[in-house]
Amino acid sequence: MKKGEETRARMLEAAAGLFQAQGYAATGLGQIIEEAGVPRGSLYFHFPGGKEELAAAAVEAAGAYLAGVIGERLAAADTPAAALEALADHFAGELTRSGFSKGCPVSTVALEATAETPRLKKACAGVYRAWLSLIETRLTALGIAEAKAGPLAQSWLGAIEGAILLSKSLETTEPLTRMAKDLSRLAEEERA
Amino acid sequence: MKKGEETRARMLEAAAGLFQAQGYAATGLGQIIEEAGVPRGSLYFHFPGGKEELAAAAVEAAGAYLAGVIGERLAAADTPAAALEALADHFAGELTRSGFSKGCPVSTVALEATAETPRLKKACAGVYRAWLSLIETRLTALGIAEAKAGPLAQSWLGAIEGAILLSKSLETTEPLTRMAKDLSRLAEEERA
Repeated sequence: MKKGEETRARMLEAAAGLFQAQGYAATGLGQIIEEAGVPRGSLYFHFPGGKEELAAAAVEAAGAYLAGVIGERLAAADTPAAALEALADHFAGELTRSGFSKGCPVSTVALEATAETPRLKKACAGVYRAWLSLIETRLTALGIAEAKAGPLAQSWLGAIEGAILLSKSLETTEPLTRMAKDLSRLAEEERA
Repeated sequence: MKKGEETRARMLEAAAGLFQAQGYAATGLGQIIEEAGVPRGSLYFHFPGGKEELAAAAVEAAGAYLAGVIGERLAAADTPAAALEALADHFAGELTRSGFSKGCPVSTVALEATAETPRLKKACAGVYRAWLSLIETRLTALGIAEAKAGPLAQSWLGAIEGAILLSKSLETTEPLTRMAKDLSRLAEEERA
């Protein structure tokens, strides 16, 4: 990676981590620069549009990284139930390791985004659409009928996001474990 | 209501509405005072602890208000499926009426709350616990075994929160409709 690209990637990673733990509005540009350990000038060099542009890119980068993780976990599972358990397990691990401070890197920003931050709103929705399509494709490969895989992916992603939220707030991974058990049953029925 | 109480209630309502649309960190005290139409001095008179104290009280007030709404909708439903559809319907209506700007009044703040805002974190978790207990009680009354009602309430609340989040981000009520259909099936099976 060239030096410029590396600086950019470090800013995106630092921003995504801070958004994940405390959200978009609470995170100042100074904090991102400090966390990334890059010179202040890099910010407007790489992101002339300022904070919203940097945030949209950070959400997209975190979304793409997590798409890789989700893709791997889904590919390794040979039933929908196993796939769902693997996803719940991934997020439960992240929450536990971070003392329940790091949930989904997109959801806080997605909820904060408004009509005043259209670029950010679009980036979050784009990440969710990409994850939905990833889950749908894998569910189809695992034997769910095409007409049912899309709607089921929506229920799954919503349930995962909500379970991460509850687990973070209540500081227990129980909602994630619960969700995986209940939703797997639904998937197994669709397959039957 | 006495004048002082009315001023306090107006500040809480304004704060909750702003948090619901844009989150805690993005909302300035000046904006809350302006939206509530109260004199600036009321703020520290009613909330000497400042923004976090006001926010914790706003989350609790919104949580109690919504507990009333949820309670009514649940009481009017005579099956778990009808109860879940009624809840999905309530939030879908809120989202549609607000142009997808108003989701759950607690979730954005719950995701933003950190170890730096312990009072806020506690208020959000308290609201979720109260809602869980409300749903659990109603599920038991509707014929779900006591041992299953608690876990099922967790799956329900997580799925509802996540579906609101996705519906808000993707600007469609489809995730809520979907979730209600899929999760009702689970509840009906528990009853069978």
